[in-house]
Amino acid sequence: MSLLPHINEQGRAKMVDVSDKAVTRRRATARARIRMKAETLQQIREGRVQKGDVLAVAQVAGIMAAKKTSELIPMCHPIPLRGANLRFREEGEEVLVIEAEVKTDNVTGVEMEALTAVSIAALTVYDMCKSIDKDMTVMDTCLVEKTGGKSGDYIRKEEG
Amino acid sequence: MSLLPHINEQGRAKMVDVSDKAVTRRRATARARIRMKAETLQQIREGRVQKGDVLAVAQVAGIMAAKKTSELIPMCHPIPLRGANLRFREEGEEVLVIEAEVKTDNVTGVEMEALTAVSIAALTVYDMCKSIDKDMTVMDTCLVEKTGGKSGDYIRKEEG
Amino acid sequence: MSLLPHINEQGRAKMVDVSDKAVTRRRATARARIRMKAETLQQIREGRVQKGDVLAVAQVAGIMAAKKTSELIPMCHPIPLRGANLRFREEGEEVLVIEAEVKTDNVTGVEMEALTAVSIAALTVYDMCKSIDKDMTVMDTCLVEKTGGKSGDYIRKEEG
Amino acid sequence: MSLLPHINEQGRAKMVDVSDKAVTRRRATARARIRMKAETLQQIREGRVQKGDVLAVAQVAGIMAAKKTSELIPMCHPIPLRGANLRFREEGEEVLVIEAEVKTDNVTGVEMEALTAVSIAALTVYDMCKSIDKDMTVMDTCLVEKTGGKSGDYIRKEEG
Amino acid sequence: MSLLPHINEQGRAKMVDVSDKAVTRRRATARARIRMKAETLQQIREGRVQKGDVLAVAQVAGIMAAKKTSELIPMCHPIPLRGANLRFREEGEEVLVIEAEVKTDNVTGVEMEALTAVSIAALTVYDMCKSIDKDMTVMDTCLVEKTGGKSGDYIRKEEG
Amino acid sequence: MSLLPHINEQGRAKMVDVSDKAVTRRRATARARIRMKAETLQQIREGRVQKGDVLAVAQVAGIMAAKKTSELIPMCHPIPLRGANLRFREEGEEVLVIEAEVKTDNVTGVEMEALTAVSIAALTVYDMCKSIDKDMTVMDTCLVEKTGGKSGDYIRKEEG
Repeated sequence: MSLLPHINEQGRAKMVDVSDKAVTRRRATARARIRMKAETLQQIREGRVQKGDVLAVAQVAGIMAAKKTSELIPMCHPIPLRGANLRFREEGEEVLVIEAEVKTDNVTGVEMEALTAVSIAALTVYDMCKSIDKDMTVMDTCLVEKTGGKSGDYIRKEEG
Repeated sequence: MSLLPHINEQGRAKMVDVSDKAVTRRRATARARIRMKAETLQQIREGRVQKGDVLAVAQVAGIMAAKKTSELIPMCHPIPLRGANLRFREEGEEVLVIEAEVKTDNVTGVEMEALTAVSIAALTVYDMCKSIDKDMTVMDTCLVEKTGGKSGDYIRKEEG
Repeated sequence: MSLLPHINEQGRAKMVDVSDKAVTRRRATARARIRMKAETLQQIREGRVQKGDVLAVAQVAGIMAAKKTSELIPMCHPIPLRGANLRFREEGEEVLVIEAEVKTDNVTGVEMEALTAVSIAALTVYDMCKSIDKDMTVMDTCLVEKTGGKSGDYIRKEEG
Repeated sequence: MSLLPHINEQGRAKMVDVSDKAVTRRRATARARIRMKAETLQQIREGRVQKGDVLAVAQVAGIMAAKKTSELIPMCHPIPLRGANLRFREEGEEVLVIEAEVKTDNVTGVEMEALTAVSIAALTVYDMCKSIDKDMTVMDTCLVEKTGGKSGDYIRKEEG
Repeated sequence: MSLLPHINEQGRAKMVDVSDKAVTRRRATARARIRMKAETLQQIREGRVQKGDVLAVAQVAGIMAAKKTSELIPMCHPIPLRGANLRFREEGEEVLVIEAEVKTDNVTGVEMEALTAVSIAALTVYDMCKSIDKDMTVMDTCLVEKTGGKSGDYIRKEEG
Repeated sequence: MSLLPHINEQGRAKMVDVSDKAVTRRRATARARIRMKAETLQQIREGRVQKGDVLAVAQVAGIMAAKKTSELIPMCHPIPLRGANLRFREEGEEVLVIEAEVKTDNVTGVEMEALTAVSIAALTVYDMCKSIDKDMTVMDTCLVEKTGGKSGDYIRKEEG
């Protein structure tokens, strides 16, 4: 017996039939953290005011990517999103945190949309800063929270 | 003076002019690692033989995403890729490693293509297994190596 | 206080949360006018019968672009369209008018879809005729009318 | 009087207004058959076990193409799919049959989505095997069955 | 030993490395034939003159699809096309023939682009006529001819 | 005889064969002007500093649209761009000017890419400000200058 719902009786992938799932309000939050040199983070922070806004580009990239999720993740259902937002914050001197919140009213959840948004926003930061810091690493891309749907709410247990 | 080449004189982002860069053979390798429950990794491993192949889907997703990189990363130049490959391996009982290698002959490098490939492949694994393991975390998405281009070769120093 | 709903509390753009807006029937009409040489317009007109139909291509381009609106306009919600149509007419000897009408039943309007349709249809006309008339200018791309939604109906006041 | 609903009063194509059609559960099944050398089919069959899985790639390609249908077929309405599956079987020693089943709850049917899925899956098989068999031919791409919608159910009459 | 070049050493698909192939002028021609009721073909034919042009839409759809080939066929290399054309002709009273010719100067051929063009053009004809003829069948989608590249020229042997 | 090169011998559109054109350095500049209420322009200007940056989003939208040109304009050749930049300036109290400059080394020019960039950037401004000013009008979308290619350089004659 297969526990993975995306696998059909021939052992190949399918887009699961969700016809009988109920439309409910759904929300998901995902997070990615990028570790970089302190100087890189400083450049990003100051660029905001003086020179140019790396995060403004990452913001747009993340939101546009959320809308492309079902084109990127093969077995993902297309979902007309009702809202998407990204927030940035710093954690110490070397970590930039990106959080995305996505909403819909649909039969499937928006976990993948939130995860895609933070992943592509993080890669956009990498792209714009790679000439000064190739060692940047995207850490801990994960689902933080989701609400709505039959499987119930989920809140990630953060490690102590 | 801005150190970030993607910012124009109005403090906004641009796609850098690379007209005067030379066409050279370029290769980049990126890696993502996914931490999951041992049972999840076991399901993926056994699915290969018996029930269905999560990794076959992630493989296709990663290669197709590499070709979409310049649609996803706003300031990234479009690059006709010459080759792309993904490999999977296990690291202990709870970690799946995804590595992507991308090649081109062009004026810009393919770091972003390799990073996009592993990121989307990792999210595809998440999507197909999330019904059994929502805590899966994509760790350490990073550039491993690149060759070609004026800035020279790069090999990531792994932490001891 | 921000009057622009697309800006979040960090001063960056978001896709506005429309979860609480009602689904209503919505329709929008947009228009673009292209000024060109009289000979160019004559070529387009005659091509219809004898040689080939520039406007048939522009028609298809406009309808396909309407469906791509949320991929192009970053903060635009994806909307499953229920109908889209373009019409062409001449205004004097040097002006081609393109009008697009788009319909949906959704929580947000279709103004951007109608505007995208006429903009891309106009650029398609430019593309196909640019070898004979590079001075062609797209004039007055604007919303003509919209109905449905909480903000009420809108009809553009034409200048006397 | 025009019998083709996609043509507007100017003799050009439009995306038909379906605002007044009812949302019903809809399902469509399409089929393509590929004739190839017996050795090619044998390679595909054995690859499954030993060397690599052409059909796994075709499966993913078909499902992703189903989601792209309204981007490919100009007058096709965008439809959020609720499920999609492909199945493969052999017919004699030289024919590979691909069948796709697509489902939605919407105002228009999913015939085109099922047809697009089998067409692109078939071309993917061609692509991966063309170095050993350029004569492969996609035969009989057709709609097999559809249910739901005002025009009623349809079952293809197979030739005796 | 695998005869299928798209399969990597893990038994999964890859986009073959073509770095060492020479850039040559390449051309491919593909063909699809659609069998339909004589009345349907008559509608299409007369629409050209009087009511609207199904084939103009199929033409645009085919050319746009050729440009999307590497997004649709997973292991296909992206190729900047240099030219694409579609032609239609009738074969008896019930068959519409679509032929596409595609050109490039590149390291890989354009067989898949030509095949994608005719496949999507054929589905577009189906879409626009399906309300009057659901039994339409796409027959014989195949490569007719290719030139350029190391594997040499290919001309399909037509069945006597 | 048709003067429009995009029309084939059947009177239908084709993507012109450019195999025999020389690769040269090409650059194009296009411009769009948006007329709006003085208060709207003030909001956009101040948002830059205080509340959020409409133009940062338009900038990204324009550059991403330039890369999508050949997907939007049916007969346009795909061109790997080498650089793209947008600039904004005000003209009096009610007009926002958007200028895009695009570069490539290719066999065809980048006029359409520059025009697409300013058109979509202008629509993005409209989208983000439409809740406060539905009368905004995109005026004068046109090619300003192009260099490179056999047809020679072009500079638009501005009206006195």
